[in-house]
Amino acid sequence: MLAVHLESGRVSVRRVPKPGRPPGYSLIRMLAAGICNTDLELQRGYYGFRGRPGHEFVGEVAESDTAELVGRRVVGEINLACECCAWCARGLGRHCPKRTVLGIVRHPGAFAEFLTLPDRNLHLVPDRVPVQHAVFTEPVGAACEVLDQVKIPRGTEVAVLGDGKLGLLTAQVLQLHGARVVQVGRHREKLRIAEALGVTGQIRGARLPTAEFDVVIEATGSADGLAAAAKMVRPRGTVVLKSTVHGTAQVETAPLVVNEITLVGSRCGRFAPALKLIRQGKLNLDPMVTDELALSEAERAFEDAGRKGVLKVLLRN
Amino acid sequence: MLAVHLESGRVSVRRVPKPGRPPGYSLIRMLAAGICNTDLELQRGYYGFRGRPGHEFVGEVAESDTAELVGRRVVGEINLACECCAWCARGLGRHCPKRTVLGIVRHPGAFAEFLTLPDRNLHLVPDRVPVQHAVFTEPVGAACEVLDQVKIPRGTEVAVLGDGKLGLLTAQVLQLHGARVVQVGRHREKLRIAEALGVTGQIRGARLPTAEFDVVIEATGSADGLAAAAKMVRPRGTVVLKSTVHGTAQVETAPLVVNEITLVGSRCGRFAPALKLIRQGKLNLDPMVTDELALSEAERAFEDAGRKGVLKVLLRN
Repeated sequence: MLAVHLESGRVSVRRVPKPGRPPGYSLIRMLAAGICNTDLELQRGYYGFRGRPGHEFVGEVAESDTAELVGRRVVGEINLACECCAWCARGLGRHCPKRTVLGIVRHPGAFAEFLTLPDRNLHLVPDRVPVQHAVFTEPVGAACEVLDQVKIPRGTEVAVLGDGKLGLLTAQVLQLHGARVVQVGRHREKLRIAEALGVTGQIRGARLPTAEFDVVIEATGSADGLAAAAKMVRPRGTVVLKSTVHGTAQVETAPLVVNEITLVGSRCGRFAPALKLIRQGKLNLDPMVTDELALSEAERAFEDAGRKGVLKVLLRN
Repeated sequence: MLAVHLESGRVSVRRVPKPGRPPGYSLIRMLAAGICNTDLELQRGYYGFRGRPGHEFVGEVAESDTAELVGRRVVGEINLACECCAWCARGLGRHCPKRTVLGIVRHPGAFAEFLTLPDRNLHLVPDRVPVQHAVFTEPVGAACEVLDQVKIPRGTEVAVLGDGKLGLLTAQVLQLHGARVVQVGRHREKLRIAEALGVTGQIRGARLPTAEFDVVIEATGSADGLAAAAKMVRPRGTVVLKSTVHGTAQVETAPLVVNEITLVGSRCGRFAPALKLIRQGKLNLDPMVTDELALSEAERAFEDAGRKGVLKVLLRN
């Protein structure tokens, strides 16, 4: 089968053997897979990654011990947990210290004709949800994770800093939740996507709003985003860190202490609330797909995805 | 009257006029005042400070519109809030944007023969509490603040990183609260102070405990404390930042995001729970006073307070 290989910053497409299916796992034919900023970070050397990336996908189950999965369209949770430790017992397999992670940590990713995942990681995609919406389940789950971590009552003034993919999804999810969301970004045409749901778009100028929001979501994808977010939040407010940036950030800690700011690191989330939002069709996802390319064109797809102004690039099989 | 003046890193004692007493304020004769790390940071240029420091004190009310205060021993909350804004309405005058702060922001401090504070800031010191215990009310309040911000059920595994004054008080307060506290520091003799209450002292070696605690209190007073604390905390755990360090810290944000760590900036706290603990006599405060000097010897007292191994230095009037 065809599969993408990432090594020392280079993307190549190779012909490799179809993966074996361990007991309890499904073999899944990839239908569509999205290139995420994490994939671009992996390309830059985050985690010292070398191998097959891809963790946002929709597929069709080709083989499985679970008969009712075969032939069905699925999305899959990306953390492969041990199911034995205290974390797993608490339903937090996403933090299992022995976990592998699809396309990120020691489990070959979805940028290939076939992939494998444990049956328990799979969620059926409702029939009327198109592939190009379902492929957003993983990042929408990451956006929903904010609501699992931080109490955001209806009417809370929330800023989303950044208008990339995760920023746009988070702004939409929080607006639908009932928050009053202001999204601060650099691209008028991107901001329009969440504005369609009632979010207030604001072009990021030289002066950031100062101490104006109860909650600020940092989704800039850049190392200086944290300092900017910390300026925007009110005393006793919360900054949610969504960007996984390779390297260190310079942080002034004294204002965090004096203003008693809370910073919350936030990563992936549960799939169930994400699939529910996608099924309801309330998210504005269509304008978020910039391009769709064949798996064989992965090299060009990665180049596209890294280009300024580009949102989601899908690989198709 | 005699008063301490701080300017460009220099401590001097000057003869200045006794302060005027605005309506609603008490004139307080200082009995004892503690030199805090914040005072040493002010000396180093934190906040661009220039003026009269001192915010931990016990005094005797000399003049007041409130008759029942006159002649009584008091401690005083250090934030002078406007009492009109939304913060003040929420009982969070400590974050009032118009506030001045005793000995820190535009209100002359307690390192003087006399100081003034609004009557509403004052708390009576119970008769049997000695001055050298009551003078710890402000920093004990800062330690108690952690419990106002973070839910710490009994039995929670908490690490306190740092064995300075605030670290020792926080370790004691959390242990009395029912947490299982490990204090990691560099001074055997300091660690013994909280060990007397059942805290487990641990000398900080080359290898820090990794991902072992639900809650880590960063009280090192140094810029690299945050990175160390972030290593010690479990995924989904909480790091409480207590050090107000001048300047910036280098922080790797990716592990915070991946492990969904929460950082909570924590500053001063309410006096009531602090006074209660002090009145109950359960805190081990006597060994925390390293030296007591006359106000006129403030220059030497600041030198002492900045010396390695020294805990609280008191100025006496």
